[in-house]
Amino acid sequence: MSLMDATLREQAAALAGGDADPAELLDATLGRIQDRNPAVNAIVDTFPEESRRMLAEAPRGPLFGVPVAIKDEWPLPWRAERLGAAQHMGPSPSRGESGPYRALRDAGAVIVGVANMHEYGAGSTGHISAYGPARNPWDTERCPGGSSSGPGAAFAARLVAGAVGADGVGSIRYPAAYCGLTGLKPTFGRSTMVGHHVAQTTTIVSGPLCRDAADCRLLGGVLFGEVLASREPDRLRIGVVPGELWDDCDPEVTRACREAVEALRGDVGGTVAEVDFDGREHVLMASILVGQTEELADSTPKRVAALGEEVSLIARALLRYRLLIPAVAISKALRVRTLVRRSLAEVFEHVDVLAWPTVAAPAPPLENPTVEVPSGTYPADYVNPRQAGIANLAGVPAISVPVARSSDGLPIGLQLLAPWGRDELLLDVAEALERANGREWVDALPPLAS
Amino acid sequence: MSLMDATLREQAAALAGGDADPAELLDATLGRIQDRNPAVNAIVDTFPEESRRMLAEAPRGPLFGVPVAIKDEWPLPWRAERLGAAQHMGPSPSRGESGPYRALRDAGAVIVGVANMHEYGAGSTGHISAYGPARNPWDTERCPGGSSSGPGAAFAARLVAGAVGADGVGSIRYPAAYCGLTGLKPTFGRSTMVGHHVAQTTTIVSGPLCRDAADCRLLGGVLFGEVLASREPDRLRIGVVPGELWDDCDPEVTRACREAVEALRGDVGGTVAEVDFDGREHVLMASILVGQTEELADSTPKRVAALGEEVSLIARALLRYRLLIPAVAISKALRVRTLVRRSLAEVFEHVDVLAWPTVAAPAPPLENPTVEVPSGTYPADYVNPRQAGIANLAGVPAISVPVARSSDGLPIGLQLLAPWGRDELLLDVAEALERANGREWVDALPPLAS
Repeated sequence: MSLMDATLREQAAALAGGDADPAELLDATLGRIQDRNPAVNAIVDTFPEESRRMLAEAPRGPLFGVPVAIKDEWPLPWRAERLGAAQHMGPSPSRGESGPYRALRDAGAVIVGVANMHEYGAGSTGHISAYGPARNPWDTERCPGGSSSGPGAAFAARLVAGAVGADGVGSIRYPAAYCGLTGLKPTFGRSTMVGHHVAQTTTIVSGPLCRDAADCRLLGGVLFGEVLASREPDRLRIGVVPGELWDDCDPEVTRACREAVEALRGDVGGTVAEVDFDGREHVLMASILVGQTEELADSTPKRVAALGEEVSLIARALLRYRLLIPAVAISKALRVRTLVRRSLAEVFEHVDVLAWPTVAAPAPPLENPTVEVPSGTYPADYVNPRQAGIANLAGVPAISVPVARSSDGLPIGLQLLAPWGRDELLLDVAEALERANGREWVDALPPLAS
Repeated sequence: MSLMDATLREQAAALAGGDADPAELLDATLGRIQDRNPAVNAIVDTFPEESRRMLAEAPRGPLFGVPVAIKDEWPLPWRAERLGAAQHMGPSPSRGESGPYRALRDAGAVIVGVANMHEYGAGSTGHISAYGPARNPWDTERCPGGSSSGPGAAFAARLVAGAVGADGVGSIRYPAAYCGLTGLKPTFGRSTMVGHHVAQTTTIVSGPLCRDAADCRLLGGVLFGEVLASREPDRLRIGVVPGELWDDCDPEVTRACREAVEALRGDVGGTVAEVDFDGREHVLMASILVGQTEELADSTPKRVAALGEEVSLIARALLRYRLLIPAVAISKALRVRTLVRRSLAEVFEHVDVLAWPTVAAPAPPLENPTVEVPSGTYPADYVNPRQAGIANLAGVPAISVPVARSSDGLPIGLQLLAPWGRDELLLDVAEALERANGREWVDALPPLAS
């Protein structure tokens, strides 16, 4: 097996132990990107000279010499972020040392490429980008998930063993679920956000997309600036929430996720109990309103009017629409946030984690990103935030773990949420779930990467 | 001297030591309210039976048996807050154990009356209230300051030795400055906010209005749920900010505040240096936008349209106007908040406290609450938030300390700000300032209370 197909931690260990040469791994990775990327359009920019410089200057940190990709949302000293967009709606972004760049650099990692993303981060599918859409390695006619479409597709195609994304309304968890990898949305505030273009965000976090929980622990720890301890879960109180979060999903997804919860409970012991939280019916709207208005400060009518046709029609329409949103709507959304946070705090006195499907249906076609669920057929963007938004609204950590494949051969992801600051518990639980599944899903390779 | 004219801590000590009888003090306080309140309209409700019950059940806490007033912003188990308003704009408030109530009860204090406030808390003067305005004991034709008008006037008239207010855009510091008492706006999040009608506030805090810093330390500690340590300041880096915060004030106010800063530096040693922070020109608008929209969630067009003429015309107009504020304005205000917080954090690496006048001019007439400053004549509400809003926007603690009297015999207040969580430092510095002034201003009594 090529070292490129190993886990992030195996790569790090091989390089640290002198069993592999980091310059060779970098070259091999660049070669694989050249070979395999055209099919998935996951990496939109490489810069071998800068990557080699990072390697030459790399400290002997926990990721010494390991090649990683980074979403087009983070400025680098040699490249401003483009947000998957043809044109910026606010002041021009500028090159610089974003927090994730610094964290990776200081850990000794090598940034090998910038990964594609959904235009402006404003979608759950990744089917719109100024670079053209990234493609799902499990089926290149399918969406890879957004907005961290490139990091998801890049890992699934085994271009890299780990990538850094950002999650404002599910943007790490959607591609994790669609592409069959593990994606952690940290507790708000734990992972570095320096240099993000939404300076005053209360929802967006940087986070890792990797093969499994152990790799997310390693890469997440780098983004947190601390070592994330692991601990064997022993008896676990798993909460499931009644209603649409479980029931208005593709029946295959619901079944697979229920089986995964049962497998988890079987492995670690404990209980599965139905619990509910206040404000649930308003979470979808509230999380979208809060998430979509945090960057409004840059959105002037003049700037929006100046956007050309190379910016997608939907983005232009959405930006105009957002200028009309009244403050009263945001105030109501913030009240929902308060209600949900308080209610979740109470729920987490009774359960250790909450669980429901990450997305309501497997990856939809790029040509027509709609999904079919019991209540009807909808654009994926209509139902996905319902599953993902609460973690952003409340600020709690959440993880998406691959737990099955659909009859179409597409990955299915289970989402787990924990109380604020308990990111480590999510990683512990995800590892228990991998063990319960014999690592069947985390180690699976799409045909494209086999 | 009557015990009613003693400080809060002297009252507490006398009661704790058995040198005074709490039932007698309560009766005397109720009697004084009856005698003296008609001139100031500071207390809008008394409930001797409930007060006596509180005393009968009072634990031997730090405020055992001490009578205090509480602003009409906090629900009590026997009385819902009315917010100085004739009609509620949202769901009816309800009786209950608000945080300040619980904190006072658990400290052994006796709530002796509910204090007046500016209608809906939406003004810096106190000249509008459903109960009629509270009056300034230093000149009953003058504004007592809002929105905690009643707590300010009640202390200044020596109806009580301490009162609990709330400060969303200066509402504790304005009455402290206008009425010549010490008012602490705590660091956001340190003082109890349970039961406040703006559930999701990021600006409003409960806080003490008392004679001096030591009394604020005692009553503030009760609201914080912790003992606030004192420490002698030794050398102090005082920052003053150029521009309108100092210069666009009544020259008497500027002079008195500059002299106070010099007296302080003379007492504790140290330096006075000019410093500035980013975003200063936007703080006024940003703090008003954030402060005035946090309760928008309750403001529906239907509710606002249903408000009758007993609600002030200005409140009805403002409520209608707020429904029209676009979210983009709030987003910009929140960006200003981010900018100011970051810049203040840097400033506080170089100075220990910032200082400028609490209000730009002494208390204006109730009949015409305008003030004259070098740039022109304005409603007091136009210039006051400029002086006070930054502490709410940034969340830092601030204190108003009486430092002089104007040629009209009206109190003048100096404001001091400290970094997040350094409320104790403000109390230490205020005590040093009292010492430097020989306690001339904190112990002064208005004619009405002599």
